[in-house]
Amino acid sequence: MELWYTEKQTDAVGLTLRVRRTLVSERTPFQHLAVLDTEQFGRVLVLDGMVQAAEGDEFIYHEMISHVALHTHPAPRTVAVIGGGDGGAVREVLKHSSVEKVVLVEIDAQVIEAARKYLPQISHALNDPRVEIRVEDGLRHVKDNKETYDVIIVDSTEPVGAAVGLFSREFYMDIFDSLKEDGIVVAQTESPFYNKDLIKRCTSMIARLFPVTRLYLASIPTYPSGLWSFTLGSKEYDPLAVPAGRFSDIDTRYYTPDIHRAAFSLPRFVQELLG
Amino acid sequence: MELWYTEKQTDAVGLTLRVRRTLVSERTPFQHLAVLDTEQFGRVLVLDGMVQAAEGDEFIYHEMISHVALHTHPAPRTVAVIGGGDGGAVREVLKHSSVEKVVLVEIDAQVIEAARKYLPQISHALNDPRVEIRVEDGLRHVKDNKETYDVIIVDSTEPVGAAVGLFSREFYMDIFDSLKEDGIVVAQTESPFYNKDLIKRCTSMIARLFPVTRLYLASIPTYPSGLWSFTLGSKEYDPLAVPAGRFSDIDTRYYTPDIHRAAFSLPRFVQELLG
Repeated sequence: MELWYTEKQTDAVGLTLRVRRTLVSERTPFQHLAVLDTEQFGRVLVLDGMVQAAEGDEFIYHEMISHVALHTHPAPRTVAVIGGGDGGAVREVLKHSSVEKVVLVEIDAQVIEAARKYLPQISHALNDPRVEIRVEDGLRHVKDNKETYDVIIVDSTEPVGAAVGLFSREFYMDIFDSLKEDGIVVAQTESPFYNKDLIKRCTSMIARLFPVTRLYLASIPTYPSGLWSFTLGSKEYDPLAVPAGRFSDIDTRYYTPDIHRAAFSLPRFVQELLG
Repeated sequence: MELWYTEKQTDAVGLTLRVRRTLVSERTPFQHLAVLDTEQFGRVLVLDGMVQAAEGDEFIYHEMISHVALHTHPAPRTVAVIGGGDGGAVREVLKHSSVEKVVLVEIDAQVIEAARKYLPQISHALNDPRVEIRVEDGLRHVKDNKETYDVIIVDSTEPVGAAVGLFSREFYMDIFDSLKEDGIVVAQTESPFYNKDLIKRCTSMIARLFPVTRLYLASIPTYPSGLWSFTLGSKEYDPLAVPAGRFSDIDTRYYTPDIHRAAFSLPRFVQELLG
């Protein structure tokens, strides 16, 4: 028997993955959660029917959502990851020796539990003593913690259900206040092929608050269209002006200092979204 | 009724597209040929079950297989496109004002006919007076035409069936001889996620013949993994040393001079393929 999982990435296009077996499939208070063991990409975390992290390519997403901001800041010590209960972004953040504390703010405890149990390659860094796990609403957390963070990483799901607020202006105003005076925020902002309006909205929202706003891209096969965008807002430092000496010799499979710069080179149709 | 077309891009992963209708589905002397009208990407040319060109994203592939080499050469006058019967690469080549002649060498006349009939957005430049269409074997053509071309574009299908020879060492030796003394070849060399061995083999094969060999990447949603590689071999000019003044102001939707450079910035796991 062949078992296939198909994610409808839009109404008219899907990614279909051959599945060895379903490790877990359950409803949490916030969403449907599944972990599938796939032939092509190994184990895959699926939330509300959408691939969040696959063992075979999660390194790209997690490296790119973390290392660009953490190299842009000259000495990031305190970092928050909003969402990202799988632990992949935390794992990458901890590769930076300046980091003293990472606060993981995940609303759904069952995501963390499933990642610990079924996705140790992604979640193992959650056991690091520098990590503080807070099972709470990210919107509440940034409202309650002023001038706390050097870097905030918004590692959200798609802008539906529990994550809608993570794409709101109010949330970014609170993030601005939750960052220190030279802080940086970075958020995943979906596909430049399928989510043009969302990218326009997020970049202009962040640009109204932060003096430096930049969009960058990475190729992630299991994500819709295979091309993914990240939006970075910075109070002081420009990711395109990182001194060469600052790039640390961290262990990566996608990110390099050269990729750091090239990721900001946007295809013309993406440039045009930014107006 | 919902009609879906699914391409098995590997044994374990597929792309599935919602289809409005099938415009043509026929067997040619060389392959199975279909043109589907899809919701997401408009009309799609499918050869032997694999997407070759979709109206919605073909601009990326055709711009990137053409403009990098054509800007690397200081004055390309005579260009061959091997394969590429849809006419998309020819359309992009003709945007360069130095070009006097483009020879399209397509083995399968029915690809050209289907493109003319169903894909005018892609094929319209085939009517340009600078285009010479030759329905013949590309392997034969380069063997028979010595020191003829400034640029040769190998716009092949996947390395199965009729296209196997287009990935052979003998073919590249003949291409070398078919190029003028400062000529450039560029070939599509598949996905860095799914075709690592092919990329290794092609880059090392081309590097044994050409003093300058470079791999570059572009994001193409309808192609396997969404990330595609191109390998460029050059007798004299380096695509990374194009003088800024040479970039012409051509009409593109993906390619820019900045993308030209950034496309050569390779993720670490791709760099490592090159040894």
